[in-house]
Amino acid sequence: MSFTLLKKSSNSKARRGKLKLNHSEIDTPVFMPVGTQASVKSISPDELYEAGFKIILSNTYHLYLRPGADIIKSQGGLHKFMNWKYNILTDSGGFQIFSLSGLRKLKEEGVEFTSHIDGSKHFLTPEKAVELQEIFGSDIAMVLDECIKYPCSEKDAERAKNLTFNWAKRCRNAHSLASQLQFGIVQGNVFKNLRKQSSEEICSLDFPGYAVGGLSVGEPADIRNEVLDYSVDWLPDNKPRYLMGVGAPEDIISGVKCGIDMFDCVLPTRNARNGQVFTKNGPINIKNASFKNDSNPIDDSCKCYTCKNFSRAYLRHLYKSGELLVLRLNSIHNLYFLNNLMLDIRKAIEEDEFKSFADYFLSQYSKS
Amino acid sequence: MSFTLLKKSSNSKARRGKLKLNHSEIDTPVFMPVGTQASVKSISPDELYEAGFKIILSNTYHLYLRPGADIIKSQGGLHKFMNWKYNILTDSGGFQIFSLSGLRKLKEEGVEFTSHIDGSKHFLTPEKAVELQEIFGSDIAMVLDECIKYPCSEKDAERAKNLTFNWAKRCRNAHSLASQLQFGIVQGNVFKNLRKQSSEEICSLDFPGYAVGGLSVGEPADIRNEVLDYSVDWLPDNKPRYLMGVGAPEDIISGVKCGIDMFDCVLPTRNARNGQVFTKNGPINIKNASFKNDSNPIDDSCKCYTCKNFSRAYLRHLYKSGELLVLRLNSIHNLYFLNNLMLDIRKAIEEDEFKSFADYFLSQYSKS
Repeated sequence: MSFTLLKKSSNSKARRGKLKLNHSEIDTPVFMPVGTQASVKSISPDELYEAGFKIILSNTYHLYLRPGADIIKSQGGLHKFMNWKYNILTDSGGFQIFSLSGLRKLKEEGVEFTSHIDGSKHFLTPEKAVELQEIFGSDIAMVLDECIKYPCSEKDAERAKNLTFNWAKRCRNAHSLASQLQFGIVQGNVFKNLRKQSSEEICSLDFPGYAVGGLSVGEPADIRNEVLDYSVDWLPDNKPRYLMGVGAPEDIISGVKCGIDMFDCVLPTRNARNGQVFTKNGPINIKNASFKNDSNPIDDSCKCYTCKNFSRAYLRHLYKSGELLVLRLNSIHNLYFLNNLMLDIRKAIEEDEFKSFADYFLSQYSKS
Repeated sequence: MSFTLLKKSSNSKARRGKLKLNHSEIDTPVFMPVGTQASVKSISPDELYEAGFKIILSNTYHLYLRPGADIIKSQGGLHKFMNWKYNILTDSGGFQIFSLSGLRKLKEEGVEFTSHIDGSKHFLTPEKAVELQEIFGSDIAMVLDECIKYPCSEKDAERAKNLTFNWAKRCRNAHSLASQLQFGIVQGNVFKNLRKQSSEEICSLDFPGYAVGGLSVGEPADIRNEVLDYSVDWLPDNKPRYLMGVGAPEDIISGVKCGIDMFDCVLPTRNARNGQVFTKNGPINIKNASFKNDSNPIDDSCKCYTCKNFSRAYLRHLYKSGELLVLRLNSIHNLYFLNNLMLDIRKAIEEDEFKSFADYFLSQYSKS
């Protein structure tokens, strides 16, 4: 398991790399679809692979609560349980505890929370987050961190940054699974001094990869991009960099421009289920009445299963009729579209044309 | 387009046949999955074909109301609209008008009803039912009939039978699409004298195929089987016989035993979405707690995509977690199971072993 930097853009911080993981090699920059509960909603493992993906994300918080680590363990780990033969990144559970669960009590030792499913009480420590992810057998595990929402005071952001560092140390010590990489997470909200400090602290622990956490948590896009651009400079060149929770095409372009290698987000599949699908000229909503007799595919340049086989008129009919198939067909398209965007981005970096590619893509993408 | 009777069972009325239709040949006895709104719920056309199907059913009532015949026409017909390259049988709309729509007014001329979607008023005549199905371009079209529910008086059943005959004549006259077979429908509820009369009346119109309608409408199974067994004897040997709305494995076996060639039902896909899946030892519900750590497939002798790739434990987890994927995986299994049952039935008839096959299948199927 290793990361190789293959090429750097000459007029941006964009980079082209290769990440060797336990279940296969990954080309970066890469987008990772989210399989929250051991399933990328409506999509089969075969369809994920056919859409070009070799790494997905799954959520420790959800898997811990349901079906529970005992069942995943006795079913031979997460890959076997969900029949996914490629890589899985698991988060630590922290983000969902702070956004989904109830009655949180944060202590230095860990965090107490109640399940969003049945209200039962649980206590998650850094060590437990490591243990769970080792049971799941994911290829990349994340440390437990405290992700603080925007806006917040500098004092609160500093406290969360300090806790994140203490927890990162404990996670680093607890980690023992040789087939799994453990990534550190930088916090600091939008405060540059805290971002610098957090980067230095987390990088001192020498993780094989680093995530920029605590962005896409409510802050305006221009602030996010400025903080991101600044944050990345404090991360080592020879390790993969992961921007958590970002998945809109325009935001991926911005992230790559700042030197990010990995992205994940529920956006492409969640929006698909709401009828919103990507096209090269920007997103459209398939529910729109203007598509009711439109025999064109979602995007006439797309080669996905949906675009090769179905018209906008049919997809709109399925959506208006409440037919389940459309949730899948839209999701397949959006995932394929994003993977294709990553292929184009990688090619552009290889040819040192990333900046002009990004400008052209964004000029087309804002047309709709 | 023609029907060939290949083999008759020596100790039951079971028959093995071949039905040439506009989009391909069909082996009978056959089960047809239901794609109510131009989609077999949660299943793609490719998956239908992979599960072994070359004919599906779609509902004129639903397609007429949404997306509407104008859109299906301008999208090149139903096959092209839904991207299904094999055969489609469309019903006439009558059954749904009597079971789904509101405020029905039945006249000799036709039936007035209000849409279950928006309450709008519509009037369907036999001629209109023919016209709609010709626009859809289905391979088999059904005449408009009045399907009367059990229990009913003999007087009401006779009135419905007479109307069905009058409408059948008008449908026969109105039909003009050479690439489409039009089937007649026998009514008469559970009254044998009416069944005989209806068969004689409908068969006098010389349709290329006949459906036994008005069964599976509330009557006990033993009465249904007795009436079915009696009804079939009044139908010609050299035409396909279709039992409408039947799809439970044990009922298909009974139907084949009476000489039925074609079946359709929402049961396999609807039950799948409720968690009920077929096994050779009878149906099980995947939600059951006993499956929570069960690494076996739904049925260890099944070769479907679901059974080859996923455990009961995983399917149960998906179901309990509200994950969409399980609706599809269960549906694929149930459809594959039924198609496989039809393959076994056809083989058994060819080898003149249908009766012993049926006895063995039912003895195993009642074990769960």
